[in-house]
Amino acid sequence: MSSAAVTDATILDRLQQLQVSHPEVVSHAPVKGSAEWKAELATSSPTLAETLLTKTLLFKPKTAKLATPTPVLVLAQDTTETPSAAIGKLLELKELRLASEDLIKEVLPSAASKDDVSALALPKPVPETLHLLLDAALVQSEEQHALHLTTSATTVLLKGSDIKSYLESLVEHGQGVKVVDFAELKASAPAPAEKKPAAAPKEKKPTSAAAPAGPEDDKYEMAIRFKKDEDFSGWYTDVLLKGQMIDYYDISGCYILRPWSYSIWQTIQNWFDDEIKKLGVNDCYFPMFVSRARLEKEKDHIEGFAPEVAWVTKAGKSDLEEHIAIRPTSETVMYPAYAKWINSHRDLPLKLNQWNSVVRWEFKNPQPFLRTREFLWQEGHTAFLEKAEADKEVMDILKLYQAVYQDLLAVPVIPGKKSENEKFAGGDYTTTVEGFIPTSGRGIQGATSHHLGQNFSKMFDITVQSPTKSDDRLFVYQNSWGLSTRTIGVMVMTHGDDQGLVLPPRVALQQVVVVPVGLSKGEGKNQPIYDACLKLERELVAAGIRAKADLREGYTPGWKFNDWELQGVPLRLELGPRDIAANTTLSVRRYDNHKTSLPLADISNTVRTYLDEIQASMLARATDIVNSRLMNVTNWDDVVPTLDAKNVLVLPWCEDSQCEDDIKERSKGQAMKGVAEDSKAPSAGAKSLCIPFDQKRFGPFPDGEEQKCVQCGKKAKSWTLFGRSESTCSDIK
Amino acid sequence: MSSAAVTDATILDRLQQLQVSHPEVVSHAPVKGSAEWKAELATSSPTLAETLLTKTLLFKPKTAKLATPTPVLVLAQDTTETPSAAIGKLLELKELRLASEDLIKEVLPSAASKDDVSALALPKPVPETLHLLLDAALVQSEEQHALHLTTSATTVLLKGSDIKSYLESLVEHGQGVKVVDFAELKASAPAPAEKKPAAAPKEKKPTSAAAPAGPEDDKYEMAIRFKKDEDFSGWYTDVLLKGQMIDYYDISGCYILRPWSYSIWQTIQNWFDDEIKKLGVNDCYFPMFVSRARLEKEKDHIEGFAPEVAWVTKAGKSDLEEHIAIRPTSETVMYPAYAKWINSHRDLPLKLNQWNSVVRWEFKNPQPFLRTREFLWQEGHTAFLEKAEADKEVMDILKLYQAVYQDLLAVPVIPGKKSENEKFAGGDYTTTVEGFIPTSGRGIQGATSHHLGQNFSKMFDITVQSPTKSDDRLFVYQNSWGLSTRTIGVMVMTHGDDQGLVLPPRVALQQVVVVPVGLSKGEGKNQPIYDACLKLERELVAAGIRAKADLREGYTPGWKFNDWELQGVPLRLELGPRDIAANTTLSVRRYDNHKTSLPLADISNTVRTYLDEIQASMLARATDIVNSRLMNVTNWDDVVPTLDAKNVLVLPWCEDSQCEDDIKERSKGQAMKGVAEDSKAPSAGAKSLCIPFDQKRFGPFPDGEEQKCVQCGKKAKSWTLFGRSESTCSDIK
Repeated sequence: MSSAAVTDATILDRLQQLQVSHPEVVSHAPVKGSAEWKAELATSSPTLAETLLTKTLLFKPKTAKLATPTPVLVLAQDTTETPSAAIGKLLELKELRLASEDLIKEVLPSAASKDDVSALALPKPVPETLHLLLDAALVQSEEQHALHLTTSATTVLLKGSDIKSYLESLVEHGQGVKVVDFAELKASAPAPAEKKPAAAPKEKKPTSAAAPAGPEDDKYEMAIRFKKDEDFSGWYTDVLLKGQMIDYYDISGCYILRPWSYSIWQTIQNWFDDEIKKLGVNDCYFPMFVSRARLEKEKDHIEGFAPEVAWVTKAGKSDLEEHIAIRPTSETVMYPAYAKWINSHRDLPLKLNQWNSVVRWEFKNPQPFLRTREFLWQEGHTAFLEKAEADKEVMDILKLYQAVYQDLLAVPVIPGKKSENEKFAGGDYTTTVEGFIPTSGRGIQGATSHHLGQNFSKMFDITVQSPTKSDDRLFVYQNSWGLSTRTIGVMVMTHGDDQGLVLPPRVALQQVVVVPVGLSKGEGKNQPIYDACLKLERELVAAGIRAKADLREGYTPGWKFNDWELQGVPLRLELGPRDIAANTTLSVRRYDNHKTSLPLADISNTVRTYLDEIQASMLARATDIVNSRLMNVTNWDDVVPTLDAKNVLVLPWCEDSQCEDDIKERSKGQAMKGVAEDSKAPSAGAKSLCIPFDQKRFGPFPDGEEQKCVQCGKKAKSWTLFGRSESTCSDIK
Repeated sequence: MSSAAVTDATILDRLQQLQVSHPEVVSHAPVKGSAEWKAELATSSPTLAETLLTKTLLFKPKTAKLATPTPVLVLAQDTTETPSAAIGKLLELKELRLASEDLIKEVLPSAASKDDVSALALPKPVPETLHLLLDAALVQSEEQHALHLTTSATTVLLKGSDIKSYLESLVEHGQGVKVVDFAELKASAPAPAEKKPAAAPKEKKPTSAAAPAGPEDDKYEMAIRFKKDEDFSGWYTDVLLKGQMIDYYDISGCYILRPWSYSIWQTIQNWFDDEIKKLGVNDCYFPMFVSRARLEKEKDHIEGFAPEVAWVTKAGKSDLEEHIAIRPTSETVMYPAYAKWINSHRDLPLKLNQWNSVVRWEFKNPQPFLRTREFLWQEGHTAFLEKAEADKEVMDILKLYQAVYQDLLAVPVIPGKKSENEKFAGGDYTTTVEGFIPTSGRGIQGATSHHLGQNFSKMFDITVQSPTKSDDRLFVYQNSWGLSTRTIGVMVMTHGDDQGLVLPPRVALQQVVVVPVGLSKGEGKNQPIYDACLKLERELVAAGIRAKADLREGYTPGWKFNDWELQGVPLRLELGPRDIAANTTLSVRRYDNHKTSLPLADISNTVRTYLDEIQASMLARATDIVNSRLMNVTNWDDVVPTLDAKNVLVLPWCEDSQCEDDIKERSKGQAMKGVAEDSKAPSAGAKSLCIPFDQKRFGPFPDGEEQKCVQCGKKAKSWTLFGRSESTCSDIK
């Protein structure tokens, strides 16, 4: 919708950035099909007569009932057979058909007709949902291949490896480029599709209760297709999809939160809501709509949101006279009511919170939980007579946020204050719990608690009569604080591994899975094992442990192990004839695969304690990793290398805004010049993440009182975290 | 936005409907001000020279910081003084100013200029937020008064009483017409307003800690301005506003849910969510947006919603290529995902629920909780292999809905099945818990649980392979069920009285208020009483009772009694020196004002038991009232009189759709002809409310097996409830 149009010049420019300089480009008459193309090339130059042609095909799986259309683009040698049924099987998609012209234009906006389809004209980044398949024969060939630029009237000649690099450079998120050996694929193709082919693993008809269930196929379909360390973004999405946390939706930037993730949010909600109620906060609900006049009342406040505001302009067939916004946050929704409700100091403090969804129509690449157009959060808005009360609450709430991350999600965070540049512009100061994603080496703001001072009370005229001087009106002091479903994304990024999700026990919808093992063939033979599994399930559930026995028939124990590992269940208990005989169960911890036998006697208490240990160990492990990546740096020359090694900088800093800008620019500039730079290397500059409240953990300044700021040389005020940071949208602001 | 324009003919037509036939109408030149008007009338006819002129004034209170602009229209004799400050005081509005031309046009769309302002040209219904004030001198006068029609170039002559009837006929909801004695009002007017006048009662500066706090003024400001039996709609809104359940919002049809009401919703949520989890239902969250293609996929389903769908067409400054709807309900949002997730019978049952808000852009008069543009609900959507499982769940859920009403809200409901006409069109059958509002004599659908059969699974292709026959695809059986914040509205209408809200203990955010009484003047003298109150509060809170001591200074005990009665707190405990000496407390039940002394020894247990009794008695009382209004009627002639007496009909009925249409039309026709009919009398026809599952409670048919349908004479199948019904929008459908 927002990508700039791709022109021939765009494509040549991209090629140049990939060091493919001056490829041969030929203009000719528009062509339909390969025969015409070949003829035109031959006409242009006899040397081109034998050029290998390519084809770009766009397929659409059966989507009437699929949540998200996931088109498939295939770039192959013209002579390669690319059977749609086999591709469908490979990608687990149903009934692939060549795409309609409409879909072509959606995927390739520059294509004027279906003769102009060229993979080179894909937008950058390519849509996350697009499957991009590249012919192995083409990649492996050393020869030049003919491809169109944006129309069928131009041809560019490229080597297979350059084509591969080109396509890979377009992919920022999602599926990556898949190189496919079509010859091999065809050989393993299924019989012509039935009405509804039995593609999903669950569909497999078991041959007998205990028989192995096509482990080869299943392994392929179940496994996470990307390594966390190699393609973090592809890994992340795949883990969320296969772990049943989310599903795609047919509106970009919106995702379905399935019970597996929503239950985590509910656990956070219940815990946090109880805690804020102890602080005297009450829940309420304000409308999701904001009138234009209100939204625009405070120009400065709205400025940051304006480009992302979704507007309702029609109801039924009627055009609304006044366009109505969907709240991107609720200050302008709530504070006029505060002005009305707060008249006397007796009306203070006013402490309200709401659990709701807000909408920010981001045009950047969406990422589940981190950057979505609608997201769930809580927003607290409080008003006080005295600044000191407000200051205290800011910290009370921040401690709760820290507890959500550390105690519930086993994710370490660092509480601190934001720099002037990074604070909420409408407030006096911002506190944050700052997270760190080791795999990307990026910081991420976990949740923020703002003191707004009297800025908003002056805007909205929220005043009370002075309790002491009867003529004075006092402006109230306000806070706002928010925590969103981003928490879940950070948790997944922190703990997940190449086998899938890893959930901390406290938030896992299912904490324990009991799997029967050592099964034998023959009717009824396994019943004692099943009975033992159910007994164990009941015993655990009775003790308040979220446990379930997996007695699904038709799946091997190994298949079940994989399935529950994918979904991150913290503890697996295996029960087979030998275990039963020994009155024990073999336990396997998800987070480190540690195996140990547990006595069945008093199993509930044993498991409860064990789950607590797992929770603590997961936090300890994650904390150790983060700590190992916090690098005290006192010499500017170490800044960019430390960043490039995916660390967070702990810098002696002067806390000056201009200096922060300079740090960003200087580190960015140096990173760009780096030798190792390719299109995927992070070249962003470092911004301040927070000034940690606990300064002591970083030791004294090496130069003590004389310590200079690492960038500008002025007197350093504090150890401050600087780093690259995940781009998100769900901050309360 | 949607009202048809008011013309002179409209006004004359309305007058005729009020039996004011052929009033004298005079055309003349347009006039500015009363002198010109008088002159023009004299020119027309000497007899008109001395006609009493009127004036229509429109005021606007200070609204920059108010949640809703609440304009004030005053119709008075031209010579009556109508000071804005006094009106403001009367209505608790700040800084009244004459309205701008823009506002005039909003309130009186037919007014071409500010000279054309006439109360007669008000739209019908009058906006809920408009205050309509009528000069008592005008009402009491027997003489003809001159008023303009839609322009200053026409004059109509009317008596004061006719003018009053006319205005009253325009008001369907909201504040009603207030007759004001301006002479008296002026006498009691305040001094000229300060910058921010101390209008709110809480603002009053106490003269001494225990002094009476202007009880006269406060009583006026606090009291509910309408009697429940006289102006039910005005009463309802006033109770919700003054009981701090809701506040107005600046977008029509949207309301702020304050903690006092939202906490009730949370209590319902927590209870219901626990119960459905026991049934194996999991919560999830689907996006609030629906693509046009999806929404329109199922034409029949969407037809009912289409006129009410809100459309997002812009984001920031960009026009969206595809307009995006906000969900009015989630079938088309969720079922494509169901088709994707459900592939094998092992994936069944699938039981998902979500707590969310949906949007239906109603153009009819809004009513808090009953008809709002955004409302909160839960929607459950489940899928089963077998119809019998689905049937069972429909009833399991309905029982939970019954429990929400009866056990939590102390509101009696009647479980039953909807007729074919009244069922959810997309489903196989609909069950309902049907409520009844005695004051209006109308039925109200409490919550519905639908069996959808295979209708949606066929639309969305949700199939599984047969577990027995490997080639067959089976369509799943589905249910959907929903409960909305409407529950809160029904509860308020059921229990509230002329003193304000009455809350059942189980859902009251505050169950007990402790009020110190018998206070005396003098520093520190009351401390022992305050201490005793706090001790009592602590004791109750420690026992899990939601209690609070009201130690606010500057208010009399009487003021506090009123305040907590307004908010419906179930139990008041008074503590004074005599109580303390006797080790007792005087308790006052909100719902029936019953007073009894309770010993302070073991007070927690006593109060807990007492609250349970109150809960049970409130349900019993409400049930008795409803039961007394369920009228077995076997003779058609009794139908309309029984309806007009605000009863529900229990009819022997044939269950035929055409017959139901006939009952509606026939009862409507007869009601319209009724002698007693005035503009406020209910003239709607009777529709079926439900066919109660418990048929026995209505006794055997008088004619046994031979019983005929009361309308058509065919064989009766069941006792069926028929009645007039509240118009709502928040049914799950």
